[in-house]
Amino acid sequence: MTEYNTPDYHFMLEAVRLSAQSVQQGTGGPFGAVVVKNGEIIATGSNCVTTANDPTAHAEVMAIRAACTVLGNFQLTGCDLYTSCEPCPMCLGAIYWARPDRVFYANNRYDAAAIGFDDRFIYDEITQLPENRKIPFIQLPCPEAAQPFTDWLNSTQKITY
Amino acid sequence: MTEYNTPDYHFMLEAVRLSAQSVQQGTGGPFGAVVVKNGEIIATGSNCVTTANDPTAHAEVMAIRAACTVLGNFQLTGCDLYTSCEPCPMCLGAIYWARPDRVFYANNRYDAAAIGFDDRFIYDEITQLPENRKIPFIQLPCPEAAQPFTDWLNSTQKITY
Repeated sequence: MTEYNTPDYHFMLEAVRLSAQSVQQGTGGPFGAVVVKNGEIIATGSNCVTTANDPTAHAEVMAIRAACTVLGNFQLTGCDLYTSCEPCPMCLGAIYWARPDRVFYANNRYDAAAIGFDDRFIYDEITQLPENRKIPFIQLPCPEAAQPFTDWLNSTQKITY
Repeated sequence: MTEYNTPDYHFMLEAVRLSAQSVQQGTGGPFGAVVVKNGEIIATGSNCVTTANDPTAHAEVMAIRAACTVLGNFQLTGCDLYTSCEPCPMCLGAIYWARPDRVFYANNRYDAAAIGFDDRFIYDEITQLPENRKIPFIQLPCPEAAQPFTDWLNSTQKITY
């Protein structure tokens, strides 16, 4: 049961407003997102894949990047993400790397599929072995690739993430 | 059996060189990537998560973004991606949205886990139901969210991706 007069709902409405704006202004798909910290929106994002010529410019990725810039950090500890639609696998991965506390979404993956955004295909591909994917993922063993990994392991100056 | 005197290997060595440079210069994790079209490297990327304060700044994402800028397109049709390590789920998602023809990788997910990059956790989380994930994904149904989806479906000016 959704409570309609809560801070959560207020933040979600802003994400939805951004999703509507994206369609109206022709900047990209119907998706918006906001990042909230301590009860305030600190960053927003909307889909601009086709206008920025950036296939990674989904609303969640844009909002995460913007929030990290605001915070001067590569982590979103203590933040919540509100997105107008359930994140695709790319955005889910970005969320796990950014590590916000919680994610709220309005439309779900079935709603998205109904308007032509079939994330299911990517979700299915992820679980396939690399060599069985529709886009072939081919391991090209390279002895030289081991050294940078060893260097990283041995580095005393590295910043882990 | 890897052939060591091929264009594929040459491109991979450049991705590996970028991964080594990233550690040496302290710009980020030991990962590099290049995008190739018609036998030429058109864009490169290396991990700069901790210096750019951008959790999405993985080598593959950086290379994909750069290649799309070069091509003035949000698709990498006719391109191959060479990456020094098997892509994480975020990068895999980005690859599916960018749609290159093929992906080549050197180190694999087990090599990455051995130096502290355990993508397995994210791969496992993706297959969980949203409400069962370690980062809670909470659906907040919002009647207002349906309209932008309908607007998108009915738009005659939209650019699909």
